[in-house]
Amino acid sequence: MPELRRDPVSGEWVIIATERSRRPHDFRKSEESDSPKPERLDTCPFCPGNEGLTPPEICAFREADSLPNTPGWWVRTVPNKYPALTEAGDLNPRRVGIYTAMHALGTHEVIIETPLHNQHPATMPPDQWQEAIRMYRERALSLQRDPHFQYVLLFRNHGKPAGASLEHPHSQLTALPFVPEVVQRKIDGIMRYADQRGGCLYCDMLAQERDSGTRVILENTHFMVFAPFASRYPFEVCILPKHHAAHFAQEPPDVHRVFAATLQEVLQRLARILDDPPYNYMIYTAPVNLEHEPLFHWHLTLAPRLAVPAGFEMGTGVYINIVAPEEAAEYLRNTATKRE
Amino acid sequence: MPELRRDPVSGEWVIIATERSRRPHDFRKSEESDSPKPERLDTCPFCPGNEGLTPPEICAFREADSLPNTPGWWVRTVPNKYPALTEAGDLNPRRVGIYTAMHALGTHEVIIETPLHNQHPATMPPDQWQEAIRMYRERALSLQRDPHFQYVLLFRNHGKPAGASLEHPHSQLTALPFVPEVVQRKIDGIMRYADQRGGCLYCDMLAQERDSGTRVILENTHFMVFAPFASRYPFEVCILPKHHAAHFAQEPPDVHRVFAATLQEVLQRLARILDDPPYNYMIYTAPVNLEHEPLFHWHLTLAPRLAVPAGFEMGTGVYINIVAPEEAAEYLRNTATKRE
Repeated sequence: MPELRRDPVSGEWVIIATERSRRPHDFRKSEESDSPKPERLDTCPFCPGNEGLTPPEICAFREADSLPNTPGWWVRTVPNKYPALTEAGDLNPRRVGIYTAMHALGTHEVIIETPLHNQHPATMPPDQWQEAIRMYRERALSLQRDPHFQYVLLFRNHGKPAGASLEHPHSQLTALPFVPEVVQRKIDGIMRYADQRGGCLYCDMLAQERDSGTRVILENTHFMVFAPFASRYPFEVCILPKHHAAHFAQEPPDVHRVFAATLQEVLQRLARILDDPPYNYMIYTAPVNLEHEPLFHWHLTLAPRLAVPAGFEMGTGVYINIVAPEEAAEYLRNTATKRE
Repeated sequence: MPELRRDPVSGEWVIIATERSRRPHDFRKSEESDSPKPERLDTCPFCPGNEGLTPPEICAFREADSLPNTPGWWVRTVPNKYPALTEAGDLNPRRVGIYTAMHALGTHEVIIETPLHNQHPATMPPDQWQEAIRMYRERALSLQRDPHFQYVLLFRNHGKPAGASLEHPHSQLTALPFVPEVVQRKIDGIMRYADQRGGCLYCDMLAQERDSGTRVILENTHFMVFAPFASRYPFEVCILPKHHAAHFAQEPPDVHRVFAATLQEVLQRLARILDDPPYNYMIYTAPVNLEHEPLFHWHLTLAPRLAVPAGFEMGTGVYINIVAPEEAAEYLRNTATKRE
């Protein structure tokens, strides 16, 4: 059973998940194949006809006459076969001398974004992508309602250097019984700002980015897209709602439709400029089921994985970014794509 | 000129270093060659005879009749050609609305650990490795004396997946005018522990690890080597002095000699078990030139890069580690190597 462990010095938590353990030999390097991808792969657990290779589905958008765990779906959510979090039991914290540990309670789901193995999030039909994002919302809303959880994280790993182990387009969803440190630090910063200056830090950032313009990539009815001032990663992108809203999942459908189109536009521009780079994106949203609703302003952060954080980053926490966000924004601003 | 920027939400700092900037095209993927390495490479800036390809040397252990920046050295320290930190000017902090920036003042040096291109830290002659570690000490001591700096970080990136851009064996040394966040958080944890329980957290950790034994890899006259309880990385290793000492560089020569042998033993075991894995190691040591000497207990952390931190780690700060430290320690404990 995976276990949460706290570093007694820094206070940071890690998950020890030995269910996914490998032998030393399995870590040895192997060559990556770069052959063209087929529409369907017999061995891919996310391809139609292979539904039996995943745990039973949690939710699927599928044809009315199709049965669960058979073809006929266009977006499908399943439990992660090798979850980092477990749904069974209690937190069961234990102390051993200076150390603290507890069970890694939570859920870990996979959203299969399309039945077609060789589709790409940047270029799949917009209707299909809209449906994938609709599933993000459905699943996030569902998990938020569970009082055991305090945080729901949606993220996507694209490409092997970004940690994707399967190439069939998919995102992941985790629900945690605590507010993770990265989010808590954001909340702390937001609270500090509100105390000192009044108002929402992200709303003020939006206004300042618009005034300055140098880091703006695009702006539409609902979103401001820009390269963050303190980008950790080359070509890092932030998609920020122009209205103040704490929860991604509680946005109305029209906001989600514009969000899907905006995200796909960003992915297209990145794919064009950087030749389909590996990337991660994370949707940062407000915690749920706390006694007090914290101030938050949800947003998506996209981090292309073009550089390797190394000893310096690990030793200091300070990231070295070799592309100024102003330069990245200029490239991404001037590479508008035509919508089909 | 590189620039430090602070994330206004999390309070974290990044360095924007456009001197190393590349065009989008240059980020495109290339194939890694795996051909056998020669003893000397005409194009390698760290090979003897190519001293003109680096900035002029800062310090070298070299034959008495040899001239600076010519062959005849066995360990050589040069400024990083593409430094992330700059020695010129002042911090010059500036605020623009919600943002804060300042110059990334500091130094960034490269320690070339051997003249032989194809030597490997795990297997080079122990005498040579001792000399490399002696250079670590010399340079760290020298930089600590500069009152502009508050922190000196020694680190090593080994292998391309760990961020090494040149394969010739080398380490890096940076000096910073502030205490970086990762270190500050360690200090905060150490202080909290001392307040609550009295005594040094690392000294108590050492005692507990010895009692438990399950995570111990080896112990010798001066060091305890173990897999940390909350390891973020598979096969993560900590080398901790058994005596309480704040500063790596201020250890006497005999401690450094044992340290060099201990580190090389760990590198040998890792290379044997994991087929020369990519890794980073960082030497965490006390800040310098502060008004009050903080409690600290220096140590080395070695992080093999066998897994890719991805969306989950970035979204939460919680690392998923697929090898329990107890299991890693068992492998590393039972793979003792013979000293030549």
